[in-house]
Amino acid sequence: MGIDSPRVVATRAELRAALASAARPIGFVPTMGALHAGHGSLLRRARSENAIVVASIFVNPTQFDRPGDLAAYPRTNAADLDLCRREGVDIAFVPLVDEVHVPGATTTVHPGPIAGLLEGAARPGHFVAVATVVAILIDLVGPERAYFGEKDAQQLLVVRRMARDLAMAVEIVGCPTVRDPDGLALSSRNARLAADDRAAAPVLRRALVAARDAWVAGARDADSLRSTMRGVLAAEPRVRVDYVSVADAGTLAEVAGAIDGDVLCSLAAELGSVRLIDNETLRAT
Amino acid sequence: MGIDSPRVVATRAELRAALASAARPIGFVPTMGALHAGHGSLLRRARSENAIVVASIFVNPTQFDRPGDLAAYPRTNAADLDLCRREGVDIAFVPLVDEVHVPGATTTVHPGPIAGLLEGAARPGHFVAVATVVAILIDLVGPERAYFGEKDAQQLLVVRRMARDLAMAVEIVGCPTVRDPDGLALSSRNARLAADDRAAAPVLRRALVAARDAWVAGARDADSLRSTMRGVLAAEPRVRVDYVSVADAGTLAEVAGAIDGDVLCSLAAELGSVRLIDNETLRAT
Repeated sequence: MGIDSPRVVATRAELRAALASAARPIGFVPTMGALHAGHGSLLRRARSENAIVVASIFVNPTQFDRPGDLAAYPRTNAADLDLCRREGVDIAFVPLVDEVHVPGATTTVHPGPIAGLLEGAARPGHFVAVATVVAILIDLVGPERAYFGEKDAQQLLVVRRMARDLAMAVEIVGCPTVRDPDGLALSSRNARLAADDRAAAPVLRRALVAARDAWVAGARDADSLRSTMRGVLAAEPRVRVDYVSVADAGTLAEVAGAIDGDVLCSLAAELGSVRLIDNETLRAT
Repeated sequence: MGIDSPRVVATRAELRAALASAARPIGFVPTMGALHAGHGSLLRRARSENAIVVASIFVNPTQFDRPGDLAAYPRTNAADLDLCRREGVDIAFVPLVDEVHVPGATTTVHPGPIAGLLEGAARPGHFVAVATVVAILIDLVGPERAYFGEKDAQQLLVVRRMARDLAMAVEIVGCPTVRDPDGLALSSRNARLAADDRAAAPVLRRALVAARDAWVAGARDADSLRSTMRGVLAAEPRVRVDYVSVADAGTLAEVAGAIDGDVLCSLAAELGSVRLIDNETLRAT
């Protein structure tokens, strides 16, 4: 592995044929392409834990609520396949839309109340679309393990919950966020940041680190943690804050006042036309 | 097979252990118990097409919109297991609710517009619950084929569509409705019919046969077919009609006027406190 190119398949039938004789276990890394070192870490983890690694590269149109965001989403197929090759991917599934969403499809997977909070409140229908496409891709690939980044914490929670609730025969593996040296979480959208916005973007991370530092120092009031984060963000006028959240790590219900258990600190902000998110989990023990 | 008792398992872990060494292919017959000859035909079909037959007996509480209906639903576990034994079932999965619906589960599967029509209009949430529990059971059993009766035509359509839309690795097999000699479709609810209502119940089948006869004679107007069925039902005063439908066999959209393609004729009626349904598909070719 690692020096051969991955086998690239575009249809359900080709995928099925490629998997028919595949060794087990299979590790699966679903992506929307525009791969960066964060994806690289998922692929490496999958490579280390499985006999076969399958990556999908599919910009799922149903999970974009703004057509402009879909159109602007970066496509870098050649570089993506090159990263797949370097990370030892065995099979790259690069389907057209109809191979994932059959024409006339109406069935959707609904995660429940957590889908309406935070990113789900900002992007109506987003997590229904994510849960549905992940269910389809997992059904198509049939992996023992599927890998998701902690950078999209709510997505990871939605997928974990779906796999548990629907008894899917797959282990969902969360992998730590990969960051640039200045702390900015890697994201396919970062490439669209103007230079000044890129320079300002690490303030998201600094806000979360300030909350974490306060937590380590003993702060246990959610309102105080939110104020800490908002204070850091306010120092950067280029950042338009969408939300600053301190929520129950299991339900994502916003915590009011005293914190009792693990919490997810998360935030979303726009810089220019680019929307960025980041998060930090604070554990009670 | 056929003379040994099925292995009865109650938990996910026991099911997994029983399936770990199971031969393939697996045929799966999900039931709500109260088994009758209709279930027997599903089990026989599964037996004839697979190396292993798994039946589940689970009265799914989430798919009952009326608590009284759930409480009144017949439970006949000993007789059910006896039928499973006679039909050569290898594994009977008889779980408690928590083994199917994990505590705190919030993920549901939504079939889309067809879930709001006919039985779905009469029983809000019913087909979301059906799709969800079938997805869970199929994920738990991992069968090559799953068997459903055509008597619940809309349920069969919902499940077929879910399996297709979500790319589930299972073939959904529909099996013909089994009837008493007087035409009444077998149903676990028939046992609750009072004697007079049982005597009147075959009028549902006669209404559908009248529509089929008209179709064979060349009738192609949906309103006329509905009138034919209503006319037959009106002759039986004990029957309270819920709906009489002539719908597109793929979308279940009600057909107005001229029929162009396959249609599903279906009806629902109450006799005493028991609600009965039946259907007949009329094919254009």
